Amino acid sequence: MYVFNALVSTAVHMVSEFQFVANLQQKYLLDKVGDDCAVLPKDNKNDLLLTADMLVEDIDFRIEWTTPEFLGHKALAVSLSDIAAMGGVPKWAMLSIGIPERLWKTDFLDRFYAGWHKLADKHDVELIGGDLSRTPDKLVIDSIAGGETAKGHSVLRSGAKPGDIIYVTGHLGGAAGGFKFREMEQRCNDKASKNTSDLILQQLNPQPQIFMAKQLSELGLMNAAIDISDGLSSDLMQVCKASKVGARIDANLLPIDESLTENFSADVRMDLALNGGEDLELLFTANEKKISDAKITGITRIGEITSNNGKIELTRNGETEILLPKGYRHF
Amino acid sequence: MYVFNALVSTAVHMVSEFQFVANLQQKYLLDKVGDDCAVLPKDNKNDLLLTADMLVEDIDFRIEWTTPEFLGHKALAVSLSDIAAMGGVPKWAMLSIGIPERLWKTDFLDRFYAGWHKLADKHDVELIGGDLSRTPDKLVIDSIAGGETAKGHSVLRSGAKPGDIIYVTGHLGGAAGGFKFREMEQRCNDKASKNTSDLILQQLNPQPQIFMAKQLSELGLMNAAIDISDGLSSDLMQVCKASKVGARIDANLLPIDESLTENFSADVRMDLALNGGEDLELLFTANEKKISDAKITGITRIGEITSNNGKIELTRNGETEILLPKGYRHF
Repeated sequence: MYVFNALVSTAVHMVSEFQFVANLQQKYLLDKVGDDCAVLPKDNKNDLLLTADMLVEDIDFRIEWTTPEFLGHKALAVSLSDIAAMGGVPKWAMLSIGIPERLWKTDFLDRFYAGWHKLADKHDVELIGGDLSRTPDKLVIDSIAGGETAKGHSVLRSGAKPGDIIYVTGHLGGAAGGFKFREMEQRCNDKASKNTSDLILQQLNPQPQIFMAKQLSELGLMNAAIDISDGLSSDLMQVCKASKVGARIDANLLPIDESLTENFSADVRMDLALNGGEDLELLFTANEKKISDAKITGITRIGEITSNNGKIELTRNGETEILLPKGYRHF
Repeated sequence: MYVFNALVSTAVHMVSEFQFVANLQQKYLLDKVGDDCAVLPKDNKNDLLLTADMLVEDIDFRIEWTTPEFLGHKALAVSLSDIAAMGGVPKWAMLSIGIPERLWKTDFLDRFYAGWHKLADKHDVELIGGDLSRTPDKLVIDSIAGGETAKGHSVLRSGAKPGDIIYVTGHLGGAAGGFKFREMEQRCNDKASKNTSDLILQQLNPQPQIFMAKQLSELGLMNAAIDISDGLSSDLMQVCKASKVGARIDANLLPIDESLTENFSADVRMDLALNGGEDLELLFTANEKKISDAKITGITRIGEITSNNGKIELTRNGETEILLPKGYRHF
């Protein structure tokens, strides 16, 4: 759920979205609010996870930069990623869609649902309901998903402890790199190189880390977790704040997406990996020996949790600087 | 959830929203789709109810015709009404809000949440999450609610049997009458008469029938139910179609809102009661003797279920006509 994630304010607001939600939590004592998913008791064995993500045309995506199938995929992917970040298994989903006349008249929704179902089938997620409304102008999608964890075993942002090692799955910066290509109006077509296509696909068709989360969760390996939706620096800061800890990242350890090398300078690549969002990779903290003993593959150690409350240190070429949370405000 | 309700198509579409959802159900075998709420197993004792309702500015409401508090109330009320229509008790809710800059800069959201929480507190509903996003122009709200029923005791649209008596709670046509006033640009101010104010409040501040649904549900009195959100004729037709039955309504029995008398002719009042939506009253079918024995107050018998599959007969002054489903497309 983005209500709890970094929505980097791009306009001059009286308060940031962050601050607004924090005020709301305090005013109405909302103790289920503040993680990737809300956790509710389900039965004797399991807890219920719930998340909602709103995607708005021209804010979170551009119709002309994607396909209906990719958009259907992505709408579900962002919610499944929230469930993965709690160590959960997704079970069902709802879709509320507000659609303007210009798209309703086409096969847009048929193709959107086809893309949605392709991902849903992969993870045995059932569409159980939602809503369908007209809008005056822009497409709006609210993606709601429900999942489960073993009772009391949801992985929260608040579970990180000094000495924990910080890991990420997969590679970083690819989705943000793909977005940069789109800004430059390069399309994913025959003329695009393999690397460019890979980056654009990473942006349009990101894969939620459901299988990895299941594996890590069943072995009880994650102390804290979040999905990288706003950018490593922002999302790690969420973990630090919730856990009342700090972090130290080694820039040389970051698994920067190799497809970026062809088109971006080293500085830009580092910036994309640190601050680019939407990769939907998992960031989690864990005990190094347990991870090593479990022989988990596909993850990279990038640093460790410290007691330097609310501060992220970035070590690069022997020098250490304080990393401020930044996120690309993603379309 | 409106995805399963009558969204009367006001534009020339290739297919109606109804038909689109029906196609979707068939194509993807969506067996949880088709009632006011989806029903999922929760634990040994209870089932989980889930519903989502999207409200779009200038389609479902107009900012200048309401207040932020009323809008917050209504966003939750429509979802609680869906839970009431399943005989359920609401437990929690999520809110996804897409908000344009012009409203973000004001105290709109603070007042919206105040109105939302006032209704939530009345029914012990907890806000557990949601999302907050910007929009380019229009306000969009997706209201998600969760509730519970005793296992296997959800009241479905499909449970009506020939011989059942049809009841409605409260009064009909008030909300649609209030909407008509708004169309005439009459505001709920000092100059409005008591009746006018009552109608406008019925439109802006409808009360979901949670307590009535709980009472009826605990006694196992409802065979089928739906909430009146699109209009009696449309909503009753949903019950008829789902139950593969027909209905006969006696026009003289309809509990038409008395506040309509001052400003509307008898014909218009009847039209508002039959086809006006958003009253959020319950329509249900039941055994007449059981209802009588239980001494339920606040409900009105308006007709009976017949075996005349898919047809609603309306008896008025000794004459019978076929009532076609119509609904006011509500702002």
